[in-house]
Amino acid sequence: MRGQTVVNLFYEPSTRTRISFELAEKRLSADVVNFTASASSVQKGESLRDTVKNILAMKTDVVVIRHPSAGAPHFLARTTDAIILNAGDGAHEHPTQGLLDIYTLWERWRGLAGKRVLIVGDLLHSRVARSNIWGLLTLGAEVAICGPATLVPRAFARCGVEVYTDLDKALATGFDAINVLRIQLERQRSDFLPTLREYSRLFGLDAARARRLRPGGLVMHPGPMNRGVEITSEVADGKASVILDQVTNGLAVRMAVLYLLCGGQAPAQSEPEAA
Amino acid sequence: MRGQTVVNLFYEPSTRTRISFELAEKRLSADVVNFTASASSVQKGESLRDTVKNILAMKTDVVVIRHPSAGAPHFLARTTDAIILNAGDGAHEHPTQGLLDIYTLWERWRGLAGKRVLIVGDLLHSRVARSNIWGLLTLGAEVAICGPATLVPRAFARCGVEVYTDLDKALATGFDAINVLRIQLERQRSDFLPTLREYSRLFGLDAARARRLRPGGLVMHPGPMNRGVEITSEVADGKASVILDQVTNGLAVRMAVLYLLCGGQAPAQSEPEAA
Amino acid sequence: MRGQTVVNLFYEPSTRTRISFELAEKRLSADVVNFTASASSVQKGESLRDTVKNILAMKTDVVVIRHPSAGAPHFLARTTDAIILNAGDGAHEHPTQGLLDIYTLWERWRGLAGKRVLIVGDLLHSRVARSNIWGLLTLGAEVAICGPATLVPRAFARCGVEVYTDLDKALATGFDAINVLRIQLERQRSDFLPTLREYSRLFGLDAARARRLRPGGLVMHPGPMNRGVEITSEVADGKASVILDQVTNGLAVRMAVLYLLCGGQAPAQSEPEAA
Repeated sequence: MRGQTVVNLFYEPSTRTRISFELAEKRLSADVVNFTASASSVQKGESLRDTVKNILAMKTDVVVIRHPSAGAPHFLARTTDAIILNAGDGAHEHPTQGLLDIYTLWERWRGLAGKRVLIVGDLLHSRVARSNIWGLLTLGAEVAICGPATLVPRAFARCGVEVYTDLDKALATGFDAINVLRIQLERQRSDFLPTLREYSRLFGLDAARARRLRPGGLVMHPGPMNRGVEITSEVADGKASVILDQVTNGLAVRMAVLYLLCGGQAPAQSEPEAA
Repeated sequence: MRGQTVVNLFYEPSTRTRISFELAEKRLSADVVNFTASASSVQKGESLRDTVKNILAMKTDVVVIRHPSAGAPHFLARTTDAIILNAGDGAHEHPTQGLLDIYTLWERWRGLAGKRVLIVGDLLHSRVARSNIWGLLTLGAEVAICGPATLVPRAFARCGVEVYTDLDKALATGFDAINVLRIQLERQRSDFLPTLREYSRLFGLDAARARRLRPGGLVMHPGPMNRGVEITSEVADGKASVILDQVTNGLAVRMAVLYLLCGGQAPAQSEPEAA
Repeated sequence: MRGQTVVNLFYEPSTRTRISFELAEKRLSADVVNFTASASSVQKGESLRDTVKNILAMKTDVVVIRHPSAGAPHFLARTTDAIILNAGDGAHEHPTQGLLDIYTLWERWRGLAGKRVLIVGDLLHSRVARSNIWGLLTLGAEVAICGPATLVPRAFARCGVEVYTDLDKALATGFDAINVLRIQLERQRSDFLPTLREYSRLFGLDAARARRLRPGGLVMHPGPMNRGVEITSEVADGKASVILDQVTNGLAVRMAVLYLLCGGQAPAQSEPEAA
């Protein structure tokens, strides 16, 4: 990407996603400009579309955007000529997170068909879960979700997902991997949860529960973790955990996505399921 | 500018100007360091001059500065040995904005002598207007200004500028371009304006008024726009609008300014009026 | 450092240290990613160790960290495999500041053995002072400290440092250099000081006091200065001042530290005391 310019347009705070994208861009030798909501004319009330059209008028090639509103990147992709990369939009999608989670599983299994993956937590607000479900089902995995009834909409069943509200009953059906979602403490003011202690007791992943995965079962978490809430340190740092692999793969996946979107060619053997 | 270091020192929020400078610097292969007021020792009460002398002691070559106080860049240019580039100082000057506005007109007309340009809005607080007036008069254009009497100081007439407080009467005199200033909502608490609705009705540029420009007349706005306040979307996105050209030219103008300030040679034929 | 990646992880505001490190990294051709506490998932409550392990999982080579807690960089160095560079931790250490201060003296004197250095100010909270004392004593200098009794712990005497609470009495013993610490106005709410005016009268360095240094005596300040509080402008900008040399040397020292930590070889003659 030498000579190409990427603008990282982040309207929400982020460590790993922003740094991961920035490192991916720099390793591909792109010119990188960062734009965060707090230090910008967003404060002056400009519309998102005008901001992006201005950025594009400066001859930039790619806009990586994180935005609190679902659909913001799609709106931009429809109304501008730029390459728009969704780095998370509201509770809607987080495609590169979905890809890196799936790649982390694929790296171990070399195929997802027939594998069973359980996603635990606040499904209602999770863009990570939505992108995972979409990708896992497409690649032939079986997906189950589990969490408090207030946070696990039954409508997910219509997509072909098993829905549980009891983690121990869910684990009894056998899973090859469990993806533990972050409890977003900053969003949990609104009576979705009784108390963190109760959440932790009912839905937290501890060593006893992790042992109930199928042999070789993997533990994932998109981070940042609330240790002692949705996952214990013993599990997070344990042998089954691929949590830091997810971070490492995130960089590779984002480099690949940027490379392909900017016109790079995928090698013939790069189709995961064909390998 | 390979091997040269530019520090962008922004004491006010900015999208387009900061990104435009940063892209210009990176395309010239300079090393770029950003410094914004909120994340810095400005919080610790250091004087501007000490901050800049420290930055220069680290062997930086150029300081691009935006500051809320009129004259800050000139003070630095007088008291330090560095190349100081004014990216907007208070209500005083915004020279690269003036240059990019004028270049946008020159690109269409290949000359400004005898052309009539109308600047509409809050002239009292506008550094954009001051830099435009200065440059346009120097290049032989006729300049008029128009806005509420509270925001259009009659003193501008002494510079050879026509002063109007009625937009429709102004338009009757015939203009080749209209530059619509942003109403800075964040500054308009202090009784300069009756209401935004009244401002919009009296001084907003809509399609009917835009049609009263001379044939081929151009519509400009320095951004960010308040659509529906000082300009309608129909005009902003219409055929006469050169608003995104301004943004594109801003990048080129800033590259040129940096190149020339750092010792680059202008080609013999680069004098606009001589072309 | 071409191909190596440095992450600047700043949990406290900083001008000169962050910019100095960033410039040092860029001049060594490293890829640089900045991370400041306010724009990050620190807001989401992630632990420091998890943040850093995530950053390292993205295949970064060096983490430069400033943190309000004493020992944070050491904790990371013990619990991760990365190269961790301390850019200031609480009231504990600021090693590159210590090195740059000492290099500034060495540059003038070509040796520190037997030289007398006085450090004046808030020793209790100063990481700069601790790193200076450690280094100066190691290289054979004599070190004295001076400040209000509330801010100059007598325990320092056990390290072999002379302790004074009267600046004029201290100066009577003869010094080759005085290092004037910043009064951190933002920390001085808690009754350590009577008033700034009294501090300034008792411990501020003015021209009359500066003249009482030994012939050729040097004046240092780590910045940012409170002119008129701990140092007068006449002294700060005077002939004895090496304050801007400190800033310039800071860049060189940080380049050297990064180069050596990343596997660069020191030339045989680089040992200061051997030269």
